[in-house]
Amino acid sequence: MSAKEIKQGKQLYEGKAKKVFATSDKDLVIIHYKDDATAFNGEKKGQIEDKGVMNNKIASGLFELLKKSKIPTHFVSHLNDRDMLCKKVKIIPLEVIVRNVAAGSMAKRLGLKEGTKLKTTVFELSYKDDSLGDPLINDSHAVAIGASTFDEIEKIKKITFKINDILSAFFLKRGIKLIDFKLEFGKTPDGKIVLADEISPDTCRFWDAKTNEKLDKDRFRRDLGNVKEAYIEILNRIG
Amino acid sequence: MSAKEIKQGKQLYEGKAKKVFATSDKDLVIIHYKDDATAFNGEKKGQIEDKGVMNNKIASGLFELLKKSKIPTHFVSHLNDRDMLCKKVKIIPLEVIVRNVAAGSMAKRLGLKEGTKLKTTVFELSYKDDSLGDPLINDSHAVAIGASTFDEIEKIKKITFKINDILSAFFLKRGIKLIDFKLEFGKTPDGKIVLADEISPDTCRFWDAKTNEKLDKDRFRRDLGNVKEAYIEILNRIG
Ligand SMILES: Nc1ncnc2c1ncn2[C@@H]1O[C@H](COP(=O)(O)OP(=O)(O)O)[C@@H](O)[C@H]1O
Ligand SMILES: Nc1ncnc2c1ncn2[C@@H]1O[C@H](COP(=O)(O)OP(=O)(O)O)[C@@H](O)[C@H]1O
Ligand SMILES: [Mg+2]
Ligand SMILES: [Mg+2]
Repeated sequence: MSAKEIKQGKQLYEGKAKKVFATSDKDLVIIHYKDDATAFNGEKKGQIEDKGVMNNKIASGLFELLKKSKIPTHFVSHLNDRDMLCKKVKIIPLEVIVRNVAAGSMAKRLGLKEGTKLKTTVFELSYKDDSLGDPLINDSHAVAIGASTFDEIEKIKKITFKINDILSAFFLKRGIKLIDFKLEFGKTPDGKIVLADEISPDTCRFWDAKTNEKLDKDRFRRDLGNVKEAYIEILNRIG
Repeated sequence: MSAKEIKQGKQLYEGKAKKVFATSDKDLVIIHYKDDATAFNGEKKGQIEDKGVMNNKIASGLFELLKKSKIPTHFVSHLNDRDMLCKKVKIIPLEVIVRNVAAGSMAKRLGLKEGTKLKTTVFELSYKDDSLGDPLINDSHAVAIGASTFDEIEKIKKITFKINDILSAFFLKRGIKLIDFKLEFGKTPDGKIVLADEISPDTCRFWDAKTNEKLDKDRFRRDLGNVKEAYIEILNRIG
């Protein structure tokens, strides 16, 4: 069945930034990108004009890039301005975070100045649970509560570091430092682990390589102004 | 030089529960156990009568037990009621926590009822820094900030799980469940990693195996009464 024949079905889930719809193919979903922006676990709410359109484009491009490097992803195709066709997966309830430079919650937690160089790349897990505030956990917590197995975490870690290498190089060529980012993984019906969700200025910290200007959702989080412009800038640089 | 000939030198450090003194042997320190009790990162303060005497006895007995199983420790000898003679080490600034059952901060963080069985034993690290509130971290954070190396953490993990096996079995024989505990490790001048600090009802959660009655510092933290009696009970059961 080609993407053209896929019919949108009922809404399965509405999240903070996207909606997920069933389709006429039980193994596929449509991910619909909204303009809604939230921060600090939903405490701060707003809209960024055309964010959904831009994030759908950016994520689609990055999933294509990863596909070329044989990273398994849920991405099937960019359907239209706000819709992406994806393999339906069972999301593993972990936020997988990579940090190349100290920023955000890690800088705060460890008393580091934002921008501090780290002696090693940080691989972080949060338990994806809004009611608990997505708490930072470690591997053994994830296994202890049944969120994943050690084997799954090892696989996720390996894929994640590969993604970091690919994306860091890709963005650096375009004058952007990839400071940190959040990934989600899911399992396909046959048990394969694939990268899911999105990769966009909502889920990455991008700093201009020369000026360290922030080109990501931190402009919204911290009321820095020129929020939409930052998303446009990222889109232009990778376009 | 025998323990008898060791002379106490100047105070090197006063912590929340103990003092550390130099000795006439540059490689040895005297650890002096106080009755001071603190909780919630020093927010709650009090005294538990004779706690220092009891913890010194309990810790000395447990270090002896671990020594027999070839666990490397800083312990040299029980000098008197409140003083323990130890090898001087450079403390690795990590609190190493093992959790056999969900309780305390982990139960709260993950929304689990205290006493919940875990699918695996949890191995946790906190960055030992009072000003940051000893934040939970993972292996890569510890390495990223220079608190330790991956190799050191692997060694510490191995020793820690062995300690958990030894102590859990020891206490269960005496009608006590070892729910969780905190360890500190240090390095001797020749670079060897050894267990340091103390093991006591200040640093472990002990529950009566039949009644689940708490026999540890949680009685102080949570104002449960019979605080001193809990420490006496632990001392009697292991004595
Ligand atoms: N391929 C997929 N199949 C099913 N669910 C997915 C897939 N990719 C992402 N998701 C989930 O869809 C939701 C996307 O909406 P989002 O607004 O990001 O939600 P949230 O507020 O929970 O983060 C997320 O819960 C995400 O885990
Ligand atoms: N063998 C040792 N050599 C040097 N320092 C030690 C040794 N064992 C423990 N320590 C340190 O001595 C201090 C003991 O006092 P304590 O009251 O527990 O302090 P704190 O309030 O920092 O936890 C701790 O900082 C601990 O890390
Ligand atoms: Mg999301
Ligand atoms: Mg201490």
